[in-house]
Amino acid sequence: MESLSPPGRDAAGLLASDLLDAWPVLSPEERAEGFRLLAPGEADDLFGALDARETSQLLLALGRTERQLWVRQLAPDDAADLVQAAPEAVRDDLLALLDDPTRKEVVALLAYAEDDAGGLMSPRYVRLRPEMRVDEAIAYLRRQARERVETIYYIYVLDAQQRLLGVVSFRELFAAPAEKTVREVMRTDPVTVPEDLDQESVSRLIAQHDLMAVPVLDAEGRMKGIITIDDIVDVVEEEATEDIQKLGGSAALDAPYLEVSLLEMVRKRGVWLSILFIGELFTASAMGYYEEEIGRAIVLALFIPLVISSGGNSGSQASTLVIRAIALGEVRLRDWWRVLRREVATGLALGTLLGLLGLLRIFLWPARESLYGPHYALVALSVGLALVGIVLWGAVAGSMLPFLLRRLGLDPATASAPFVATLVDVTGLMIYFTVASTVLRGTLL
Amino acid sequence: MESLSPPGRDAAGLLASDLLDAWPVLSPEERAEGFRLLAPGEADDLFGALDARETSQLLLALGRTERQLWVRQLAPDDAADLVQAAPEAVRDDLLALLDDPTRKEVVALLAYAEDDAGGLMSPRYVRLRPEMRVDEAIAYLRRQARERVETIYYIYVLDAQQRLLGVVSFRELFAAPAEKTVREVMRTDPVTVPEDLDQESVSRLIAQHDLMAVPVLDAEGRMKGIITIDDIVDVVEEEATEDIQKLGGSAALDAPYLEVSLLEMVRKRGVWLSILFIGELFTASAMGYYEEEIGRAIVLALFIPLVISSGGNSGSQASTLVIRAIALGEVRLRDWWRVLRREVATGLALGTLLGLLGLLRIFLWPARESLYGPHYALVALSVGLALVGIVLWGAVAGSMLPFLLRRLGLDPATASAPFVATLVDVTGLMIYFTVASTVLRGTLL
Repeated sequence: MESLSPPGRDAAGLLASDLLDAWPVLSPEERAEGFRLLAPGEADDLFGALDARETSQLLLALGRTERQLWVRQLAPDDAADLVQAAPEAVRDDLLALLDDPTRKEVVALLAYAEDDAGGLMSPRYVRLRPEMRVDEAIAYLRRQARERVETIYYIYVLDAQQRLLGVVSFRELFAAPAEKTVREVMRTDPVTVPEDLDQESVSRLIAQHDLMAVPVLDAEGRMKGIITIDDIVDVVEEEATEDIQKLGGSAALDAPYLEVSLLEMVRKRGVWLSILFIGELFTASAMGYYEEEIGRAIVLALFIPLVISSGGNSGSQASTLVIRAIALGEVRLRDWWRVLRREVATGLALGTLLGLLGLLRIFLWPARESLYGPHYALVALSVGLALVGIVLWGAVAGSMLPFLLRRLGLDPATASAPFVATLVDVTGLMIYFTVASTVLRGTLL
Repeated sequence: MESLSPPGRDAAGLLASDLLDAWPVLSPEERAEGFRLLAPGEADDLFGALDARETSQLLLALGRTERQLWVRQLAPDDAADLVQAAPEAVRDDLLALLDDPTRKEVVALLAYAEDDAGGLMSPRYVRLRPEMRVDEAIAYLRRQARERVETIYYIYVLDAQQRLLGVVSFRELFAAPAEKTVREVMRTDPVTVPEDLDQESVSRLIAQHDLMAVPVLDAEGRMKGIITIDDIVDVVEEEATEDIQKLGGSAALDAPYLEVSLLEMVRKRGVWLSILFIGELFTASAMGYYEEEIGRAIVLALFIPLVISSGGNSGSQASTLVIRAIALGEVRLRDWWRVLRREVATGLALGTLLGLLGLLRIFLWPARESLYGPHYALVALSVGLALVGIVLWGAVAGSMLPFLLRRLGLDPATASAPFVATLVDVTGLMIYFTVASTVLRGTLL
C-alpha cells in the first residue's frame, strides 16, 4: 500500500479482527467456516491471536490436512500449550500431526508443569561458542534469521557441556568491532531462572530487571531454553485474573466467563458460597446466644447489619490491599509487623470516623425518640463504640489473614473479601453485643 | 567468567539485588548512600530496576552533579515518566538537567496524558525510506545500534510527510536478499494505535496480536513514536493492581502499600468506607420498618446476618467475574443479555443450594424447638425461600451493575465486592421480611 488506507479485504470481505470480535458467540463449525473464508495473511493473523484453548477448539473443527498444516506453524512452546489445552482424548492425535524433531521438543516440554519456567520456555534459542569472531557470529545469525528460532535478538554463549557462559544481544554484537571474539563482547553475569521456578516469580524477575528474554537453566547449569517477554504479558494477565477471581470469593475460572459451562460455573462458585454460608451460620448461633438481649431491646437488632457490614468492608479493604502488595513483592512475610502497626493506626482512624457518623445518624435523626426509645443516646453510644472496635478488628484480621495463609503455604488470595467479611461478621456480633450490654446495663438491658 | 559463579562483589560487597531488597525500609539518605557504594555495573542495574517514583526520590537525594549524570542515562519516555512522578516543585529543575535535544523530546511527551499511548511511547525509533536497498538499510542499522534508539529490531518505513508506509523487523530485513528494496520486504498493514488511545486498550492490542512493538500515529497518520512490549508488562500489572484495589472497596493507591502515608491511606479508604456506611444506613431504616415483625418473632432476627451476607457473597462473585471479563475484553457491553441469562440460571442454582443448606441447618439442629419455637418448620421454610431469592438477586445485581457503570462512562471496577454487598444488604432485608411475612402470616406474624 502507498498510504494508510485500511488493509485490503478479500472476496468475502472478512477481516481477522472482525472474525475475532465475533469469536465468542460463534459455534465451532461457524468458526472453522469463517477461518476458511479469510485471505492467507488474515488467517495467519487470526491463528496467531488465538490462545491455546481457542486454537485447539479451532483445529478440532478443521479437517485433518488443514489441521496438520496449521499445527506445523506453531513454535514448540506454543504446540506444547496447545496439547495441554486440548481434551485428553485428542492429545496423542495432535502430537502425531507434528514433524519428528518438533514432536521430540514438544514431548520434552510437556514434562514440565504448565506454570513453571520449563513450561513457558522455548527450546529454540540461538547459541554461539565463545571463540567465534563477531563477524562470523553475525553471518551465522543471518542464516539463523531464516530458521524457526524464537528470536535472533538474544544470543546465548555456551560451552561444550551446554553450560551458559554469557549473553549478548544482537544489537551489542552488531555494534562491536568485527574482529573481536564473542567472549570479549558478551556479558557474563546474566539473570537466569531455574527450570522449576513458578511463572509468577519468572514474570516478576523479568519486570524488575527490564529483560526482554531470560535463559532457563537446569540444576547442573545447563541451558534448556529461553522465556521471552511476550509470554510474560500473558502470564501477568493470567495471574492477575486468577487473583481477582479468588478475591471475589469464587474459585478461579479456567476459561473466559462466557465459555465456562453453566455446571462448571455453579460448581466453581457453589463450593466457596457453601463454605462461606457454613461460616456465616455461626452468626445465627451468635445471635441465638444474644436472643434475650434482643428481646429486651429490639432497637439493638436494627443496627446489626450496619455494624457488621462495616467491619466486613474494612476487612475487605485491608485484605485486598495486602494480598496485592504480597503478589507484587512489595510486602514480604517478614513485614507482617509493619503492616500490623499500620493497620492498627488506620483501623482506629477509620473506626472513629464511622463511629462518629453512626453516632450523628442516631443523634440527629428527627424521629430518634419514637424509633429508638428514650435511651437513644446510650444506643447511639453503643453503636458508635462498637463501630470503632469492629472496624479496627476488620482491618487487623483482614490484613493478617493473608500472611497467615502464606505462612501455611496457601495462596494469600484465598482471603477474599467475602471470606474476610464472613469471619468479621461473627466476631463483629460478639463485639457489638459486648459493648451494648456494657453501655446499656441498668437501662435497656 | 568461565562458569556460573555468582557475579563478583565490589569492595563494599554490596549487590544491586541486596540493596533493592532493602529499598522499601531505607530512608532517602540511606538509599543514596547505598547507591554510591555499588560498583558501576551494579549501580546501572539498580537504576534500571527502579520505577519512576523511586528514581525521582533517589535523584533528589543525590548531589547535583551525580543527579545530572544519571538523569542523562534515561530514555526520553522514562525521563518524561520521571518528571511526571516528581513533586511539582522540582520538575523544572529535573528538566534543566537534560541535554537540549532530549529536553525537547521530553517536553513533547509531557503534553500527553500519562495513561495514553502518547504518554507511553518513545520517540526514538528507527525509520527508513522505502527506496533504500536491504544491504544499505542493514549498514544504516549497524550505525543506529550504537545510538540511543529504543530498539533496532522493529523498523518503520516512512514517506517524506512522516506517514507510516510499512513495518519490517530486523530479522526479516536480515533474511532478505541484499539487492531488494525496503519497500519490497516491508509489511504494509501494520497494527497501529492513535496517540490518545488509553494504555489498557494499547496493552490488550499488543497482547492480542502478539506484537513486540506498536507504532503510534497522530490524527493525520504521521508517526510519533513506538510503544515496546516491556512497557506493556508494567501497564498490565498496574491496571490489574488498580482494579484489584478498587474491587476491595478502596480507591486505588498510587504507590506501594508500605510507602503510602498513613494520612493518605485513611483518606483513600475512608472515602469509600463512609460511602458504603451511608448506603448501609438504609439497612437500619429497613429494619426499623420491620421492627414490629421482629418484636413478634425475634427468631427472624437471628438469621438476618446469614441471609443478607449470602446475597452479598453471591453478588461479590458475580460482579468480580464480570468486571474482570470486561477488563479482559471477553465480555462487551452488548453481551449484557447473555450475561444476565447466565446469572439468572447460576443464581437460581446457587440460591437453591444455599436454601437447602439453610433449611437442613434449622430442621436438623438438635435444639430446634427450644431455639426457634414451635413453628421452626415455617421459619426454616422462610429462611430457605428467602435465600433462593436473595442469592439470585445478588447474582443479577452484581453482574448487571458493572455494565450499568460502564454504560454511564464510569469504571466498572467501582462495583466492588463491598459496594455490591451493601446494595444487596438493603434489598436482601426487604426480600427476607416479605417472604417471612407471607409464610408466617397467621402463625408467628
